Amino acid sequence: MDVADLGLPVDVPSTALFTDQYELTMLQAALKAGTAERRSVFEVFTRRLPDGRRYGVVAGTGRVLDAIENFRFDADVLAFLRERAVVDEATLAWLASYRFSGDVWGYPEGEVYFPGSPIMRVEGTFAECVLLETVILSVLNHDSAIAAAASRMSSAAGGRPLIEMGARRTHELAAVASARAAYVGGFSSTSDLAAGFRYNIPTVGTSAHAFTLLHDHERDAFQAQVASLGRGTTLLVDTYDVAEAVRMAVQVAGPELGAVRIDSGDLLLVAHRVRRQLDELGARDTKIIVTSDLDEYAIASLAAAPVDAYGVGTQLVTGSGHPTCSMVYKLVARAGSTDPKAPLLPVAKKSSGGKTSVGGRKWAARRLDENGVAEAEVVGTGAVPTELLDRRLLVELVKGGEVVAREPLDVVRERHTAAVAGLPLSATQLSRGEPVLPTEYVHGRSGS
Amino acid sequence: MDVADLGLPVDVPSTALFTDQYELTMLQAALKAGTAERRSVFEVFTRRLPDGRRYGVVAGTGRVLDAIENFRFDADVLAFLRERAVVDEATLAWLASYRFSGDVWGYPEGEVYFPGSPIMRVEGTFAECVLLETVILSVLNHDSAIAAAASRMSSAAGGRPLIEMGARRTHELAAVASARAAYVGGFSSTSDLAAGFRYNIPTVGTSAHAFTLLHDHERDAFQAQVASLGRGTTLLVDTYDVAEAVRMAVQVAGPELGAVRIDSGDLLLVAHRVRRQLDELGARDTKIIVTSDLDEYAIASLAAAPVDAYGVGTQLVTGSGHPTCSMVYKLVARAGSTDPKAPLLPVAKKSSGGKTSVGGRKWAARRLDENGVAEAEVVGTGAVPTELLDRRLLVELVKGGEVVAREPLDVVRERHTAAVAGLPLSATQLSRGEPVLPTEYVHGRSGS
Repeated sequence: MDVADLGLPVDVPSTALFTDQYELTMLQAALKAGTAERRSVFEVFTRRLPDGRRYGVVAGTGRVLDAIENFRFDADVLAFLRERAVVDEATLAWLASYRFSGDVWGYPEGEVYFPGSPIMRVEGTFAECVLLETVILSVLNHDSAIAAAASRMSSAAGGRPLIEMGARRTHELAAVASARAAYVGGFSSTSDLAAGFRYNIPTVGTSAHAFTLLHDHERDAFQAQVASLGRGTTLLVDTYDVAEAVRMAVQVAGPELGAVRIDSGDLLLVAHRVRRQLDELGARDTKIIVTSDLDEYAIASLAAAPVDAYGVGTQLVTGSGHPTCSMVYKLVARAGSTDPKAPLLPVAKKSSGGKTSVGGRKWAARRLDENGVAEAEVVGTGAVPTELLDRRLLVELVKGGEVVAREPLDVVRERHTAAVAGLPLSATQLSRGEPVLPTEYVHGRSGS
Repeated sequence: MDVADLGLPVDVPSTALFTDQYELTMLQAALKAGTAERRSVFEVFTRRLPDGRRYGVVAGTGRVLDAIENFRFDADVLAFLRERAVVDEATLAWLASYRFSGDVWGYPEGEVYFPGSPIMRVEGTFAECVLLETVILSVLNHDSAIAAAASRMSSAAGGRPLIEMGARRTHELAAVASARAAYVGGFSSTSDLAAGFRYNIPTVGTSAHAFTLLHDHERDAFQAQVASLGRGTTLLVDTYDVAEAVRMAVQVAGPELGAVRIDSGDLLLVAHRVRRQLDELGARDTKIIVTSDLDEYAIASLAAAPVDAYGVGTQLVTGSGHPTCSMVYKLVARAGSTDPKAPLLPVAKKSSGGKTSVGGRKWAARRLDENGVAEAEVVGTGAVPTELLDRRLLVELVKGGEVVAREPLDVVRERHTAAVAGLPLSATQLSRGEPVLPTEYVHGRSGS
């Protein structure tokens, strides 16, 4: 692949400018000081979950791999950096030949995580790793936030399908990534054509109120829609009077009408009324789709309602109250010299303010109880205890600069379902609470 | 311009897939029904401001113009739509030659808005206008949310500069748009290099904790940074002990040290201590920059602290609690036939659920009191009252498909400052309250 693959029908020359300036100035200073080539380990983790959430969802890993692969400084980018005097000529020369040549390990995409989980580990020289901070965090913080909301909504929906409809409520390209993350988190389809194009996610959609209002009578609109899209289409029945519209919809399409959509009002009440009416009209197979500012709580409250599918917009793409995660990218170990064989020394910020970190290169494993249910997230440095060897969470993603772990989105989606199923039942409670697994730290003898 | 210009160093073949599928299916049904060419007016507005906010900020208009200009269906996109059977061959043929040929009017970018303000008006055939719903809303809902947060933070900061540092907390391309919106809302600079590249926004950045941790001693790191970036650089002083770091920073760089950055702890307390220490060390011109989960309230609480600049990340790019606006794109008027001269008839959804709209093509004007301070947002149909003619808010943005209102970002930024200055003083109160202007509706005799 010779262009960046960022989740859109777009050729991107490079991802190298999705970078905070300080990464380049640190590089310049380290190059001059002779420390830039010290072997270093950076880790992505979060100190806490969003308030009240029981677990986090790793999403965006596949997009991170694309971003790393396409992170290079072409002539336009170098000319910009030169013109702005962001860095000096020696640094520009170094950047011109930049390709990440290190290793990346991480939680596989779709896996769940907890405070302190080393979600991703990037290892190489300081110079090549420090540049990736912003783009890795942008992708993971965004996509994981959306996937976490999607996962909760999926639990709330039981087996009923969820449709992602939030493109209009977020940045047009964040929307594409959101549809992808929602699919990882259990959604079935999206309204966003760009997400269908790029990620092959099923797309759906039929009509809006504007279509009804375009026509002289609601009946004309229904007839036009059925004539063009067939009896299996979904008719939107709340432009004027819902009962009248449902009656007319079945008149126009017959009992083969695919579905009706309700986008306003008291959905619980209206869904019951519409179901009764549809049944009375003989349209027993006509489904009911609801869409109106739904979140996981509203979805759960409709569990007893005769609803066949939920369309979710705003609350999905804004992470249902938590539009970002608080993942950070921290140097946790580095060599004391530029000798590639020099041992790694654990490092960590020590100042006050709740931002301290645990130094050292980490492993993580999920310990199960006697029933095979997860009981702890174990994070450690040094040797992995034998009994946890086959429960290790990090997998190799990039080896010597080459991506080695691409996978289809359906595999990721299934992994997520399995990961949640392996947690204690309280994981899927919607109410606010503590992380469903405690994080235990184990400090091995061998340091990092 | 022959590629989409979405705020990134990227060639985008088209913005046409930033579209919800129902826009295409409505097009297909309307083409078949013979109603697609009815002259139509769509308006963008919001029914409410985010809870407690006093005003909204229009941002993203320039990006909308780019998106409209590049909204076309190329061979790849058409092949995708055909393969997925999203629409039929007749519709694909229509899409292949699509170029928006209508008119767009809107509030100029940077202007403030209130519930019901007709922020943008799109006029043309139903077919050409209905397709633009999602991309217009994506851009405006995102960018306006960020600009509104930025505007509040700017008020809270008084004249002190604000640095946008949130790229890592949002989607990598939303980050670029966020930096742009923050600049509109009064921020001075950004850490995001892509935003500097694309929008010529000043970029800043020096070093992170990783740079200190890379080196064997904090002093080594400071020396390396000063040697490479000069004495005017900003040293990060909270990796270990702040007082010790400040002492060392001045030792290394001398009193010409540009600034120190504090990224953790009780910023009010620490800033006072650091200022005193810097002054005692003779570094009276060394500035103090604070960065640590700041929002407008934290900024305001530091008004009395000796702080010279604020770096804001998460809370900026997530809209400080309101990551999206609730703008909608509604058909408000359309002709009763495809005759281009047929009169426009106002239309509006009538069903319950709080989602009703006001039909008819609207104008808007901001009425001033005797002191020249804004006192009402007046929205009307029909003729504009004479006394409001020179207070009209909508300007022509696209005429017959051609963009006619591109403008530099600095003009937008200045407009925003002036718009806020024209509001009652309570507009800049941070506390929750009602919109600072009431919206008054005036229904003219001539309907739409």
